Amino acid sequence: MSEYIEPIERLADMFRRLEGVGKKSALRMAFSVLDMSEESAREFAEAVIAAKTQIKLCSVCQNISVNDVCDLCSSHKRDKSVICVVEDSRAVMAIEKSAIYNGLYHVLHGAISPMHGVGPDKLKIKELLTRLNSEEVSEIIVATNPTVEGEATAMYISKLITPLGIKVSRIANGVPVGGDLEYADEVTLRRAIEGRRTI
Amino acid sequence: MSEYIEPIERLADMFRRLEGVGKKSALRMAFSVLDMSEESAREFAEAVIAAKTQIKLCSVCQNISVNDVCDLCSSHKRDKSVICVVEDSRAVMAIEKSAIYNGLYHVLHGAISPMHGVGPDKLKIKELLTRLNSEEVSEIIVATNPTVEGEATAMYISKLITPLGIKVSRIANGVPVGGDLEYADEVTLRRAIEGRRTI
Repeated sequence: MSEYIEPIERLADMFRRLEGVGKKSALRMAFSVLDMSEESAREFAEAVIAAKTQIKLCSVCQNISVNDVCDLCSSHKRDKSVICVVEDSRAVMAIEKSAIYNGLYHVLHGAISPMHGVGPDKLKIKELLTRLNSEEVSEIIVATNPTVEGEATAMYISKLITPLGIKVSRIANGVPVGGDLEYADEVTLRRAIEGRRTI
Repeated sequence: MSEYIEPIERLADMFRRLEGVGKKSALRMAFSVLDMSEESAREFAEAVIAAKTQIKLCSVCQNISVNDVCDLCSSHKRDKSVICVVEDSRAVMAIEKSAIYNGLYHVLHGAISPMHGVGPDKLKIKELLTRLNSEEVSEIIVATNPTVEGEATAMYISKLITPLGIKVSRIANGVPVGGDLEYADEVTLRRAIEGRRTI
């Protein structure tokens, strides 16, 4: 016999396709499905299909949305003169949670990575330029991830947009609040010191 | 607006119902589904339903199976005189992987835990006794987990079966192979020393 019976093996394979799920976790999850009621398993299956079929990209900011224009873009309470550029929808959620920002967003769906064959044309940069033509924007805050790819993307966007007379800023690097200096890497510490402010 | 759009929220809630999945992981997995092709999402949904509907319990050993009697119980190559009693199907898989054991199994589907209202009647112990009446069994190896509940279950089974003239044994406690003594807890170390063998 094979190691596991076929339906479990198949389901575990599916879980493994999800980001960050290893072999053991996938198997544990597959067994969890067996412990569910048949009703719950059906709900689960439907939620997978629904997420995939009901969600599209907002025609303005390219964030995921159930409507053609997302709630953030169609809100009258947001400051439409600032656009925060992020790599993915999760970054939008993270910033929204912090409740510090009241402008709009633009989701690139990735970052420039020549290593992985991702050039600027694969990102939603064209859509961002279109917005800048039609909307009155005074500042672009580039909040791509603090990685090599995210920095490269930030540089690219800055070079593209600064000539249009729009201010382009980048979120600060530094030690995370609640973190321990001992565990901060050298590059982060250097940035934290370079970016020091008078108190 | 709510923090996340509804279909993502709903799917993440489903992932959270799985064992060992926290809020952040559930959300990451839900976003992974969005990255899948529609074809893959459908396959995923079908695998959930299939696992739940096709898998039943083997009428002999109570392990999960696609047939009425599982492959292990119906195999002619297994030693039918020994039954290894385990808490769940994952334990069967783990022991099978070790390839050290050639007998049959019996899956209890839990362990005695008065704290959680799990008495012996909630486990597949009655089914084990039925097997002992109809099969020629010479030894029961109790391989429940090395936890308070697992030990209590092992004691219960031993008291129940030893009077029937069947040998009941318990798997050994000790330091795991490849582990470091420094990280072994006191109880494990004590058991490892008590269970020492001449070499």
